[in-house]
Amino acid sequence: MEDVMKRAAGIRAAEFIENGMLVGLGTGSTVFYFIERLIERVKKGLDIQVVSSSLASEKLAREGGIPIADVNEITSIHITVDGADEIDPEKRMIKGGGGALLREKILANTSREMVVIVDETKVVEKLGKHPLPVEILPFGQEATVDKIKKSGFQGTLREHNKDGPYVTDNGNLIYDIHFETLRDDPERDHERLIHIPGVLETGFFFNLAGRVLVGKSNGEVDHWS
Amino acid sequence: MEDVMKRAAGIRAAEFIENGMLVGLGTGSTVFYFIERLIERVKKGLDIQVVSSSLASEKLAREGGIPIADVNEITSIHITVDGADEIDPEKRMIKGGGGALLREKILANTSREMVVIVDETKVVEKLGKHPLPVEILPFGQEATVDKIKKSGFQGTLREHNKDGPYVTDNGNLIYDIHFETLRDDPERDHERLIHIPGVLETGFFFNLAGRVLVGKSNGEVDHWS
Repeated sequence: MEDVMKRAAGIRAAEFIENGMLVGLGTGSTVFYFIERLIERVKKGLDIQVVSSSLASEKLAREGGIPIADVNEITSIHITVDGADEIDPEKRMIKGGGGALLREKILANTSREMVVIVDETKVVEKLGKHPLPVEILPFGQEATVDKIKKSGFQGTLREHNKDGPYVTDNGNLIYDIHFETLRDDPERDHERLIHIPGVLETGFFFNLAGRVLVGKSNGEVDHWS
Repeated sequence: MEDVMKRAAGIRAAEFIENGMLVGLGTGSTVFYFIERLIERVKKGLDIQVVSSSLASEKLAREGGIPIADVNEITSIHITVDGADEIDPEKRMIKGGGGALLREKILANTSREMVVIVDETKVVEKLGKHPLPVEILPFGQEATVDKIKKSGFQGTLREHNKDGPYVTDNGNLIYDIHFETLRDDPERDHERLIHIPGVLETGFFFNLAGRVLVGKSNGEVDHWS
Protein backbone atom coordinates (compact mmCIF):
# COMPACT_ATOMS: atom_id res chain seq x y z
CA MET A 1 0.00 0.00 0.00
CA GLU A 2 2.77 2.35 0.91
CA ASP A 3 4.49 1.39 -2.34
CA VAL A 4 1.42 2.46 -4.34
CA MET A 5 1.54 5.90 -2.73
CA LYS A 6 5.28 6.35 -3.14
CA ARG A 7 5.24 5.14 -6.71
CA ALA A 8 2.42 7.53 -7.65
CA ALA A 9 4.30 10.55 -6.28
CA GLY A 10 7.66 9.53 -7.74
CA ILE A 11 6.29 8.94 -11.23
CA ARG A 12 4.35 12.19 -11.25
CA ALA A 13 7.47 14.19 -10.35
CA ALA A 14 9.26 12.83 -13.40
CA GLU A 15 6.78 14.79 -15.57
CA PHE A 16 8.35 18.04 -14.33
CA ILE A 17 11.73 17.24 -15.90
CA GLU A 18 12.48 18.76 -19.30
CA ASN A 19 15.27 18.59 -21.88
CA GLY A 20 18.44 20.43 -20.88
CA MET A 21 17.82 20.37 -17.15
CA LEU A 22 20.38 19.70 -14.44
CA VAL A 23 18.42 17.61 -11.92
CA GLY A 24 19.24 16.99 -8.25
CA LEU A 25 18.46 13.52 -6.94
CA GLY A 26 17.47 13.03 -3.34
CA THR A 27 17.62 9.78 -1.42
CA GLY A 28 15.11 7.18 -0.27
CA SER A 29 12.44 4.79 -1.43
CA THR A 30 10.09 7.38 -2.97
CA VAL A 31 12.97 8.97 -4.87
CA PHE A 32 13.92 5.60 -6.29
CA TYR A 33 10.56 5.42 -8.13
CA PHE A 34 11.33 8.88 -9.52
CA ILE A 35 14.79 7.78 -10.71
CA GLU A 36 13.38 4.64 -12.30
CA ARG A 37 10.94 6.71 -14.34
CA LEU A 38 13.72 9.15 -15.25
CA ILE A 39 15.78 6.23 -16.57
CA GLU A 40 12.87 5.19 -18.81
CA ARG A 41 12.55 8.74 -20.13
CA VAL A 42 16.30 9.07 -20.78
CA LYS A 43 16.22 5.83 -22.74
CA LYS A 44 13.50 7.42 -24.89
CA GLY A 45 15.67 10.48 -25.55
CA LEU A 46 15.31 12.88 -22.61
CA ASP A 47 18.53 14.91 -22.45
CA ILE A 48 19.44 15.74 -18.84
CA GLN A 49 22.27 15.55 -16.33
CA VAL A 50 21.97 14.73 -12.63
CA VAL A 51 23.81 15.24 -9.37
CA SER A 52 23.06 13.11 -6.31
CA SER A 53 22.90 13.56 -2.56
CA SER A 54 23.94 9.94 -1.94
CA LEU A 55 26.14 7.29 -3.46
CA ALA A 56 23.11 4.96 -3.65
CA SER A 57 21.08 7.33 -5.85
CA GLU A 58 24.08 8.10 -8.02
CA LYS A 59 24.73 4.40 -8.57
CA LEU A 60 21.12 3.77 -9.59
CA ALA A 61 21.20 6.68 -12.06
CA ARG A 62 24.58 5.76 -13.50
CA GLU A 63 23.61 2.13 -14.05
CA GLY A 64 20.44 3.33 -15.73
CA GLY A 65 22.45 5.39 -18.21
CA ILE A 66 21.70 8.90 -16.91
CA PRO A 67 24.66 11.30 -17.42
CA ILE A 68 26.21 12.43 -14.12
CA ALA A 69 27.51 15.99 -13.62
CA ASP A 70 30.33 16.83 -11.17
CA VAL A 71 28.57 18.07 -8.04
CA ASN A 72 31.71 19.96 -6.96
CA GLU A 73 31.68 22.16 -10.05
CA ILE A 74 28.05 23.28 -10.31
CA THR A 75 26.53 26.41 -8.76
CA SER A 76 22.88 26.00 -9.84
CA ILE A 77 20.43 23.12 -10.25
CA HIS A 78 17.12 23.44 -12.10
CA ILE A 79 15.07 21.05 -9.95
CA THR A 80 15.92 18.77 -7.06
CA VAL A 81 13.42 16.00 -6.27
CA ASP A 82 13.58 14.57 -2.77
CA GLY A 83 11.44 12.92 -0.11
CA ALA A 84 10.82 13.82 3.52
CA ASP A 85 10.27 12.02 6.80
CA GLU A 86 7.62 14.57 7.87
CA ILE A 87 6.10 17.65 6.25
CA ASP A 88 3.69 20.12 7.85
CA PRO A 89 1.15 22.49 6.25
CA GLU A 90 3.76 25.27 6.07
CA LYS A 91 6.05 22.88 4.14
CA ARG A 92 8.49 22.67 7.01
CA MET A 93 10.14 19.26 7.01
CA ILE A 94 12.20 16.77 8.96
CA LYS A 95 14.60 14.91 6.68
CA GLY A 96 17.63 12.68 7.01
CA GLY A 97 16.23 9.34 8.14
CA GLY A 98 18.50 7.94 5.42
CA GLY A 99 21.49 9.80 6.83
CA ALA A 100 22.09 12.14 3.86
CA LEU A 101 20.64 15.33 5.34
CA LEU A 102 23.64 17.61 4.85
CA ARG A 103 24.13 16.76 1.18
CA GLU A 104 20.37 16.86 0.63
CA LYS A 105 20.20 20.33 2.13
CA ILE A 106 23.09 21.59 -0.01
CA LEU A 107 21.34 20.34 -3.17
CA ALA A 108 17.97 21.77 -2.15
CA ASN A 109 19.55 25.12 -1.31
CA THR A 110 21.38 25.19 -4.67
CA SER A 111 18.19 24.48 -6.67
CA ARG A 112 15.77 26.89 -8.30
CA GLU A 113 13.06 24.55 -7.00
CA MET A 114 12.97 21.62 -4.60
CA VAL A 115 10.08 19.29 -5.49
CA VAL A 116 9.08 17.18 -2.50
CA ILE A 117 7.54 13.76 -3.03
CA VAL A 118 5.96 11.93 -0.12
CA ASP A 119 3.27 9.40 0.65
CA GLU A 120 0.36 10.70 2.69
CA THR A 121 1.62 9.10 5.92
CA LYS A 122 4.39 11.76 5.96
CA VAL A 123 1.98 14.69 6.19
CA VAL A 124 1.65 15.93 9.79
CA GLU A 125 0.01 18.85 11.55
CA LYS A 126 3.12 19.43 13.67
CA LEU A 127 6.68 18.18 13.31
CA GLY A 128 8.37 16.08 15.95
CA LYS A 129 6.95 12.56 16.02
CA HIS A 130 9.79 11.40 13.79
CA PRO A 131 13.31 11.68 15.26
CA LEU A 132 15.37 14.66 14.09
CA PRO A 133 18.75 13.60 12.69
CA VAL A 134 21.65 15.93 13.48
CA GLU A 135 25.03 15.53 11.75
CA ILE A 136 27.92 15.92 14.20
CA LEU A 137 31.71 15.90 13.91
CA PRO A 138 33.41 12.73 15.26
CA PHE A 139 36.05 14.89 17.01
CA GLY A 140 34.82 15.64 20.52
CA GLN A 141 31.59 13.71 19.94
CA GLU A 142 30.78 13.11 23.63
CA ALA A 143 31.23 16.81 24.38
CA THR A 144 28.94 17.75 21.48
CA VAL A 145 26.27 15.24 22.56
CA ASP A 146 26.55 16.59 26.11
CA LYS A 147 25.84 20.12 24.83
CA ILE A 148 22.87 18.89 22.80
CA LYS A 149 21.45 17.31 25.96
CA LYS A 150 22.10 20.44 28.02
CA SER A 151 20.16 22.38 25.36
CA GLY A 152 17.16 20.25 26.28
CA PHE A 153 17.23 17.48 23.67
CA GLN A 154 17.49 13.74 24.25
CA GLY A 155 18.52 11.21 21.64
CA THR A 156 20.79 8.40 20.57
CA LEU A 157 23.89 8.07 18.41
CA ARG A 158 22.89 6.18 15.27
CA GLU A 159 24.39 2.69 15.06
CA HIS A 160 25.36 0.78 11.94
CA ASN A 161 24.11 -2.71 12.72
CA LYS A 162 26.54 -3.95 15.33
CA ASP A 163 29.63 -2.63 13.57
CA GLY A 164 29.83 0.59 15.58
CA PRO A 165 28.46 4.04 14.77
CA TYR A 166 26.79 4.91 11.47
CA VAL A 167 29.14 7.11 9.41
CA THR A 168 27.76 9.55 6.81
CA ASP A 169 29.15 9.92 3.30
CA ASN A 170 30.95 12.98 4.73
CA GLY A 171 32.70 10.93 7.42
CA ASN A 172 30.58 12.30 10.26
CA LEU A 173 28.11 10.85 12.80
CA ILE A 174 24.32 11.10 13.16
CA TYR A 175 22.67 11.87 16.49
CA ASP A 176 18.91 11.16 16.36
CA ILE A 177 16.95 13.47 18.65
CA HIS A 178 13.72 12.00 20.05
CA PHE A 179 11.34 14.78 21.01
CA GLU A 180 9.13 14.41 24.05
CA THR A 181 6.46 16.64 22.53
CA LEU A 182 5.46 17.81 19.06
CA ARG A 183 7.33 20.99 18.17
CA ASP A 184 5.62 24.35 18.44
CA ASP A 185 8.69 26.28 17.31
CA PRO A 186 11.01 24.13 15.19
CA GLU A 187 12.89 27.23 13.97
CA ARG A 188 13.94 27.89 17.55
CA ASP A 189 15.04 24.26 17.98
CA HIS A 190 17.13 24.56 14.83
CA GLU A 191 18.79 27.79 16.01
CA ARG A 192 19.72 26.30 19.37
CA LEU A 193 21.27 23.24 17.75
CA ILE A 194 23.09 24.91 14.87
CA HIS A 195 25.02 27.21 17.22
CA ILE A 196 26.66 24.30 19.03
CA PRO A 197 30.19 23.90 17.62
CA GLY A 198 30.43 20.32 16.35
CA VAL A 199 26.80 20.29 15.17
CA LEU A 200 27.28 20.56 11.41
CA GLU A 201 23.63 20.53 10.28
CA THR A 202 20.15 19.53 11.40
CA GLY A 203 17.45 17.64 9.53
CA PHE A 204 15.01 20.56 9.75
CA PHE A 205 14.31 21.97 6.26
CA PHE A 206 12.64 25.39 6.20
CA ASN A 207 11.82 27.62 3.22
CA LEU A 208 13.14 25.08 0.77
CA ALA A 209 10.13 23.13 -0.52
CA GLY A 210 8.49 24.29 -3.75
CA ARG A 211 5.82 22.02 -5.23
CA VAL A 212 4.85 19.10 -3.02
CA LEU A 213 3.38 15.87 -4.43
CA VAL A 214 1.52 13.67 -1.95
CA GLY A 215 0.84 10.11 -3.09
CA LYS A 216 -2.41 8.69 -1.72
CA SER A 217 -3.51 5.15 -1.06
CA ASN A 218 -5.95 5.22 -3.98
CA GLY A 219 -3.05 5.94 -6.32
CA GLU A 220 -3.95 9.61 -6.83
CA VAL A 221 -1.54 12.46 -6.17
CA ASP A 222 -2.34 15.68 -4.33
CA HIS A 223 -0.45 18.77 -5.52
CA TRP A 224 0.51 21.55 -3.11
CA SER A 225 1.76 24.57 -4.98
CA MET B 1 60.83 40.58 18.63
CA GLU B 2 57.59 38.80 17.95
CA ASP B 3 59.07 35.72 19.57
CA VAL B 4 59.77 37.64 22.79
CA MET B 5 56.11 38.67 22.98
CA LYS B 6 54.74 35.23 22.18
CA ARG B 7 57.08 33.51 24.57
CA ALA B 8 56.16 35.85 27.42
CA ALA B 9 52.45 35.18 26.99
CA GLY B 10 52.85 31.42 26.52
CA ILE B 11 55.03 30.98 29.59
CA ARG B 12 52.76 33.08 31.78
CA ALA B 13 49.72 30.97 30.83
CA ALA B 14 51.47 27.83 32.07
CA GLU B 15 51.26 29.27 35.61
CA PHE B 16 47.48 28.83 35.50
CA ILE B 17 47.72 25.05 35.21
CA GLU B 18 47.36 23.02 38.39
CA ASN B 19 47.60 19.38 39.42
CA GLY B 20 44.65 17.24 38.32
CA MET B 21 43.57 19.48 35.47
CA LEU B 22 42.41 18.36 32.03
CA VAL B 23 43.94 20.99 29.72
CA GLY B 24 42.94 21.84 26.14
CA LEU B 25 45.79 22.71 23.79
CA GLY B 26 45.23 25.15 20.97
CA THR B 27 47.38 25.51 17.89
CA GLY B 28 50.03 27.94 16.70
CA SER B 29 53.38 29.48 17.52
CA THR B 30 52.33 31.17 20.78
CA VAL B 31 50.73 27.96 22.02
CA PHE B 32 53.95 26.08 21.31
CA TYR B 33 55.75 28.19 23.95
CA PHE B 34 52.96 27.30 26.38
CA ILE B 35 53.31 23.58 25.61
CA GLU B 36 57.09 23.73 26.00
CA ARG B 37 56.73 25.22 29.47
CA LEU B 38 54.06 22.62 30.33
CA ILE B 39 56.48 19.86 29.34
CA GLU B 40 59.07 21.30 31.75
CA ARG B 41 56.50 21.41 34.54
CA VAL B 42 55.30 17.84 33.87
CA LYS B 43 58.90 16.62 34.04
CA LYS B 44 59.09 18.24 37.49
CA GLY B 45 55.96 16.40 38.64
CA LEU B 46 52.90 18.34 37.44
CA ASP B 47 50.07 15.80 37.09
CA ILE B 48 47.77 16.73 34.18
CA GLN B 49 46.20 15.34 31.02
CA VAL B 50 45.70 17.18 27.75
CA VAL B 51 43.52 17.09 24.64
CA SER B 52 44.54 18.89 21.45
CA SER B 53 42.87 20.78 18.64
CA SER B 54 45.53 19.70 16.15
CA LEU B 55 47.75 16.76 15.40
CA ALA B 56 50.78 19.07 15.58
CA SER B 57 50.09 20.18 19.18
CA GLU B 58 49.29 16.62 20.23
CA LYS B 59 52.55 15.35 18.77
CA LEU B 60 54.55 18.00 20.62
CA ALA B 61 52.83 17.18 23.93
CA ARG B 62 53.15 13.42 23.48
CA GLU B 63 56.84 13.60 22.63
CA GLY B 64 57.36 15.78 25.69
CA GLY B 65 55.81 13.14 27.92
CA ILE B 66 52.46 14.80 28.71
CA PRO B 67 49.63 12.24 29.14
CA ILE B 68 46.98 12.50 26.41
CA ALA B 69 43.26 11.98 27.14
CA ASP B 70 40.80 10.70 24.51
CA VAL B 71 39.12 13.82 23.14
CA ASN B 72 36.13 11.76 21.99
CA GLU B 73 35.28 10.65 25.52
CA ILE B 74 35.48 13.87 27.52
CA THR B 75 32.63 16.29 28.22
CA SER B 76 34.45 18.99 30.21
CA ILE B 77 37.89 20.62 30.14
CA HIS B 78 39.26 22.75 32.98
CA ILE B 79 41.22 25.25 30.87
CA THR B 80 41.95 25.53 27.16
CA VAL B 81 44.88 27.77 26.17
CA ASP B 82 44.84 29.03 22.61
CA GLY B 83 46.00 31.93 20.46
CA ALA B 84 44.10 34.23 18.11
CA ASP B 85 44.69 35.99 14.81
CA GLU B 86 42.86 39.10 16.05
CA ILE B 87 41.16 40.08 19.30
CA ASP B 88 39.13 43.23 19.96
CA PRO B 89 38.39 45.04 23.25
CA GLU B 90 35.19 42.98 23.70
CA LYS B 91 37.32 39.80 23.41
CA ARG B 92 35.74 38.91 20.08
CA MET B 93 38.26 37.05 17.94
CA ILE B 94 39.14 35.81 14.50
CA LYS B 95 40.88 32.44 14.66
CA GLY B 96 41.82 29.66 12.30
CA GLY B 97 44.79 31.00 10.38
CA GLY B 98 46.31 27.62 11.14
CA GLY B 99 43.24 25.82 9.78
CA ALA B 100 42.07 24.22 13.04
CA LEU B 101 39.16 26.56 13.79
CA LEU B 102 36.42 23.95 14.15
CA ARG B 103 38.34 21.76 16.59
CA GLU B 104 39.58 24.86 18.43
CA LYS B 105 36.00 26.09 18.84
CA ILE B 106 34.81 22.71 20.12
CA LEU B 107 37.56 22.67 22.78
CA ALA B 108 36.94 26.30 23.79
CA ASN B 109 33.20 25.67 24.05
CA THR B 110 33.80 22.55 26.16
CA SER B 111 36.07 24.38 28.62
CA ARG B 112 35.25 26.08 31.90
CA GLU B 113 37.67 28.76 30.74
CA MET B 114 39.45 29.59 27.50
CA VAL B 115 42.69 31.47 28.21
CA VAL B 116 43.79 33.45 25.17
CA ILE B 117 47.49 34.14 24.61
CA VAL B 118 48.54 36.65 21.97
CA ASP B 119 51.30 39.08 21.18
CA GLU B 120 50.31 42.73 21.13
CA THR B 121 50.18 42.87 17.32
CA LYS B 122 46.99 40.76 17.49
CA VAL B 123 45.03 43.35 19.47
CA VAL B 124 42.76 45.42 17.21
CA GLU B 125 40.05 48.01 17.66
CA LYS B 126 37.83 46.29 15.08
CA LEU B 127 38.02 42.83 13.56
CA GLY B 128 38.43 42.28 9.83
CA LYS B 129 41.92 43.14 8.69
CA HIS B 130 42.91 39.48 8.98
CA PRO B 131 41.07 37.07 6.65
CA LEU B 132 38.22 35.09 8.22
CA PRO B 133 38.64 31.33 7.68
CA VAL B 134 35.42 29.41 7.03
CA GLU B 135 35.39 25.59 7.06
CA ILE B 136 33.29 24.19 4.20
CA LEU B 137 32.26 20.71 3.08
CA PRO B 138 34.07 19.44 -0.06
CA PHE B 139 30.73 18.14 -1.44
CA GLY B 140 29.19 20.91 -3.53
CA GLN B 141 32.08 23.27 -2.79
CA GLU B 142 31.54 25.57 -5.78
CA ALA B 143 27.86 25.97 -4.89
CA THR B 144 28.75 26.79 -1.28
CA VAL B 145 31.39 29.34 -2.34
CA ASP B 146 28.85 30.86 -4.73
CA LYS B 147 26.39 31.33 -1.84
CA ILE B 148 29.11 32.89 0.33
CA LYS B 149 29.80 35.37 -2.47
CA LYS B 150 26.10 36.11 -2.96
CA SER B 151 25.92 36.86 0.78
CA GLY B 152 28.37 39.67 0.14
CA PHE B 153 31.74 38.10 0.99
CA GLN B 154 34.77 37.70 -1.27
CA GLY B 155 37.62 35.30 -0.65
CA THR B 156 39.80 32.47 -1.86
CA LEU B 157 39.93 28.73 -1.32
CA ARG B 158 43.03 27.97 0.73
CA GLU B 159 45.74 26.12 -1.21
CA HIS B 160 48.25 23.62 0.13
CA ASN B 161 51.45 24.66 -1.63
CA LYS B 162 50.87 23.55 -5.21
CA ASP B 163 49.38 20.19 -4.27
CA GLY B 164 45.77 21.30 -4.54
CA PRO B 165 43.44 22.56 -1.82
CA TYR B 166 44.34 22.64 1.86
CA VAL B 167 42.42 19.90 3.70
CA THR B 168 41.60 20.23 7.41
CA ASP B 169 42.11 17.47 9.99
CA ASN B 170 38.35 16.88 9.54
CA GLY B 171 38.68 16.31 5.79
CA ASN B 172 37.09 19.63 4.84
CA LEU B 173 38.21 22.78 2.99
CA ILE B 174 39.01 26.34 4.16
CA TYR B 175 37.63 29.39 2.37
CA ASP B 176 39.44 32.56 3.50
CA ILE B 177 37.17 35.61 3.38
CA HIS B 178 38.94 38.92 2.73
CA PHE B 179 36.85 41.78 4.05
CA GLU B 180 36.76 45.06 2.18
CA THR B 181 36.14 47.02 5.38
CA LEU B 182 36.64 46.46 9.11
CA ARG B 183 33.57 44.79 10.61
CA ASP B 184 31.03 46.81 12.53
CA ASP B 185 28.80 43.82 13.23
CA PRO B 186 30.77 40.55 13.16
CA GLU B 187 27.89 38.71 14.89
CA ARG B 188 25.72 39.49 11.88
CA ASP B 189 28.44 38.28 9.49
CA HIS B 190 28.66 35.02 11.44
CA GLU B 191 24.89 34.49 11.36
CA ARG B 192 24.72 35.00 7.61
CA LEU B 193 27.54 32.55 6.99
CA ILE B 194 26.56 29.83 9.45
CA HIS B 195 23.09 29.46 7.88
CA ILE B 196 24.52 28.48 4.49
CA PRO B 197 24.32 24.67 4.21
CA GLY B 198 27.86 23.46 3.54
CA VAL B 199 29.40 26.14 5.78
CA LEU B 200 30.36 24.07 8.81
CA GLU B 201 31.90 26.75 11.03
CA THR B 202 33.43 30.22 10.90
CA GLY B 203 36.58 31.54 12.55
CA PHE B 204 34.66 34.14 14.58
CA PHE B 205 34.87 33.34 18.30
CA PHE B 206 32.37 35.20 20.49
CA ASN B 207 31.70 34.86 24.23
CA LEU B 208 34.41 32.27 24.62
CA ALA B 209 37.52 34.11 25.85
CA GLY B 210 38.14 34.25 29.61
CA ARG B 211 41.46 35.67 30.76
CA VAL B 212 43.57 37.19 27.97
CA LEU B 213 47.35 37.46 28.19
CA VAL B 214 48.97 39.96 25.85
CA GLY B 215 52.73 39.62 25.41
CA LYS B 216 54.50 42.95 24.81
CA SER B 217 57.74 43.81 23.09
CA ASN B 218 59.46 44.66 26.38
CA GLY B 219 58.75 41.09 27.57
CA GLU B 220 55.96 42.11 29.95
CA VAL B 221 52.48 40.62 29.84
CA ASP B 222 49.21 42.52 30.07
CA HIS B 223 46.33 40.67 31.76
CA TRP B 224 42.73 41.26 30.70
CA SER B 225 40.33 39.67 33.14
